[in-house]
Amino acid sequence: MTAYAKLADRFARIATLGEATAVLHWDASAMMPSGAGPARGDQLAVMAGIGHAMLTEPAIGDELSEAEDAAPEAAWEAANLRLMRHAYTRATALPAALVEAQANANASCEQVWREARAASDFARVAPHLAEVVALTRESAAALGPALGLSPYDALMDGFQRGVTAADVEPVFDRYEVWLREALPRAEAAQATRGAPIALAGVFPAERQEGLCRTLAERVGLEPEHFRLDRSAHPFCGGSPTDVRITTRYNDADPAQALLGVVHEAGHALYERGLPAAFARQLVGEAAGMAAHESQSLILEMQCGRGDAFLSWLGPQLHALFGGDAGPYAPENLARLWRRVERGFIRVDADEMTYPAHVILRFRLERALVAGELQVGDLPGAWRDGLQALLGIVPPDDARGCLQDIHWYDGLFGYFPSYTLGAMGAAQLMAAARREIEGLDAALARGELGGLVTWLRARVHGQGSRLGFNDLLRSATGKPLDPGDFEAHLTRRYLA
Amino acid sequence: MTAYAKLADRFARIATLGEATAVLHWDASAMMPSGAGPARGDQLAVMAGIGHAMLTEPAIGDELSEAEDAAPEAAWEAANLRLMRHAYTRATALPAALVEAQANANASCEQVWREARAASDFARVAPHLAEVVALTRESAAALGPALGLSPYDALMDGFQRGVTAADVEPVFDRYEVWLREALPRAEAAQATRGAPIALAGVFPAERQEGLCRTLAERVGLEPEHFRLDRSAHPFCGGSPTDVRITTRYNDADPAQALLGVVHEAGHALYERGLPAAFARQLVGEAAGMAAHESQSLILEMQCGRGDAFLSWLGPQLHALFGGDAGPYAPENLARLWRRVERGFIRVDADEMTYPAHVILRFRLERALVAGELQVGDLPGAWRDGLQALLGIVPPDDARGCLQDIHWYDGLFGYFPSYTLGAMGAAQLMAAARREIEGLDAALARGELGGLVTWLRARVHGQGSRLGFNDLLRSATGKPLDPGDFEAHLTRRYLA
Repeated sequence: MTAYAKLADRFARIATLGEATAVLHWDASAMMPSGAGPARGDQLAVMAGIGHAMLTEPAIGDELSEAEDAAPEAAWEAANLRLMRHAYTRATALPAALVEAQANANASCEQVWREARAASDFARVAPHLAEVVALTRESAAALGPALGLSPYDALMDGFQRGVTAADVEPVFDRYEVWLREALPRAEAAQATRGAPIALAGVFPAERQEGLCRTLAERVGLEPEHFRLDRSAHPFCGGSPTDVRITTRYNDADPAQALLGVVHEAGHALYERGLPAAFARQLVGEAAGMAAHESQSLILEMQCGRGDAFLSWLGPQLHALFGGDAGPYAPENLARLWRRVERGFIRVDADEMTYPAHVILRFRLERALVAGELQVGDLPGAWRDGLQALLGIVPPDDARGCLQDIHWYDGLFGYFPSYTLGAMGAAQLMAAARREIEGLDAALARGELGGLVTWLRARVHGQGSRLGFNDLLRSATGKPLDPGDFEAHLTRRYLA
Repeated sequence: MTAYAKLADRFARIATLGEATAVLHWDASAMMPSGAGPARGDQLAVMAGIGHAMLTEPAIGDELSEAEDAAPEAAWEAANLRLMRHAYTRATALPAALVEAQANANASCEQVWREARAASDFARVAPHLAEVVALTRESAAALGPALGLSPYDALMDGFQRGVTAADVEPVFDRYEVWLREALPRAEAAQATRGAPIALAGVFPAERQEGLCRTLAERVGLEPEHFRLDRSAHPFCGGSPTDVRITTRYNDADPAQALLGVVHEAGHALYERGLPAAFARQLVGEAAGMAAHESQSLILEMQCGRGDAFLSWLGPQLHALFGGDAGPYAPENLARLWRRVERGFIRVDADEMTYPAHVILRFRLERALVAGELQVGDLPGAWRDGLQALLGIVPPDDARGCLQDIHWYDGLFGYFPSYTLGAMGAAQLMAAARREIEGLDAALARGELGGLVTWLRARVHGQGSRLGFNDLLRSATGKPLDPGDFEAHLTRRYLA
């Protein structure tokens, strides 16, 4: 057995344990009785400990060196070996005591954050966040040299390989400039179109769920390989042959569930389309969080909320829910579901202002990690930042720096992925429009098969062979180019 | 840290991994999309391998010796240490190659058995079963000396500690004699009462499910610690703070689901009532399969199908499903749900003839393990045995020696637990009737709280501190006594 084969076996076992863990996470959100929470926490901790021990076994270091000396010729195997080395470096760069201290600090900070957010009381959680930030700095300082990256880039690398702050900064700066001019014009154009008619009536959850299931199957998810369930926070979990998406139903408004399921179905299709020949190998995994978000957003934002698809969806909804036809007219749905609005809350933001929320967080978290911003100064810096980006100031910290769980759970370097994904989605959609004849006509018939086939070849089937920029280059002929996203927004909101 | 404390930590980690495994098993039966089967098999195999490696770590041997030298004074800790030694002995007695050969042989035999049963073609699976039996003999021969038990007793010990074939044989022989005389009398008595009226109409699954949930909560399962779902084969899984029961609904007959949920709720209450102070320790687990079955059967057979409870349940069912009142009269339900009948299929058998099915299997599997019966002679031995016990001969092997999965999956020594459990349930019920004032009056009001409290003190809360006979002695004042079961059947079927 070659050293590479031994490593492939090890990583397959680790990935298989990871699949089991994914089921437990899904279960905790979608199925588990509330009283089982503490036991589930223990189960996940034990499995994480076992997985970490499997990944840091000293023998792996020798096997990696031996396999690297043998230098696999096939490109996929070579890429897989590089990813193994990368994972081993990340896992062994941190002392076990630091990993444990982070797990504990993150868990208790997150718990206090829930109360602090409910009470809009930043002071209550500030000392916990300071501890989390201190440990994050320590961890970034250890990871950076090991990976040959700056400390903040080493954190970003944990979520999206192949993108650094130096890549992101000019893209975000350019968007800020563009938005300053575009947003008032979009608002003015919107004002001239008049207010949309709200969808009125009761939308029973069962009927919404039936439609959501139909939509998921329509975009290509096979019933024998996916589930659709309910949870407080929609997500896509599971593993490639067992994808599990969730949503929630509001019986006064079906938009959240419908568009949410289209979004999660984009994630699910990515998992389903990963290269089966490299299942359970690192190179067979998705390419990162930004790549993943590009797949959910190309379905939700580019297709699902686009004119062509709405012209198919509107009549479907009207037939299902009855009542006046007016609200279901595609033009009305477009006005309802593509409303631009300066708001305080990231997760409620439209696609034009959403990047402003991300840019704010990217700048603040970089400063926190660099030690240039202290935790005590975060609420003020947040207010100033949002004022500068969107011209509004949150009335309290619950709608300011307390709104997102990420930092309070130790997740730094994650936020940029959302906007990189949105931009990647626009860039992929532009390329797909050039290459797939009649794409919009197909969308107007509610057919996404052609697009999904294209994405499977260009993105899903590539696994994580390429980093984010190289993946975009291979799929669209260029690295990340925010111009496609601006052009998309211009067509949709400034025409 | 003492050696005992180190061991307690190790076994807690193993048990925590076992809880995770239990969720995956439940999910595979109740939730998992069909196409995820192969991946789930891999996940369970990896977790089993990890668990086995944790249990056989050489350091455990030293820690056990050290802890045994220190001899814990407290009775529970001493019992726990004995169970640890026992588990370690079982796990290390078998060479890894044999364990693997058994896993493979069992898996392929089970698969061929599914086809063989469908085609009623014993010859097709016979060579596979011969391989399974050969490996089982080898395994029993290795386990026996390590545990100080005969080979067959070592197999029984894997399902129910504290009972040997020498305990079971006279109990079963006595029952056979009793049944030969009692069964014709029960049939004659039944004939004089006339045929029951069948429940007619449609019983929507949702309404059955609502009633099943109410029943489960009524017997004491808390919504924050249990789930009720659907699966092809009803079972109780999960772990003590997260108990998961399943059933299936037949919309032409609610009996299966209702009585099935009462049965599974008995298992669930046992898990819920295990001593929390010894959670995740061997001594805090249930005392074995016979003990577990005694808890499901005391709820289903002793209470659920008894006159008192039926006098409460009948009007509830009539109110829920409507229609004629006649079929819901408690006397009619008793005739419907307590019908004695000589049949070929164990799982369909009534409580009086059920032990005959178990006695047959006990005798045949002992002979197979001892090498006194060859696999090729099994169909004939089965026909002769059933003829001798019940006076009927199965028309084919599908309704004969192919009907149960157990042997084809390598489970030998399991069958006696069903009847030991039924007898234990009768013995516990007789003791409860003596000790709980107004028990039948409470059952007639649909109230099981008093009985459950008694079981919690006498059985559930004892964990596996005691073997089966000692547990019965401690709860009822005597070891297993089939007289209580015979007295119960006499009252119910021969009066």
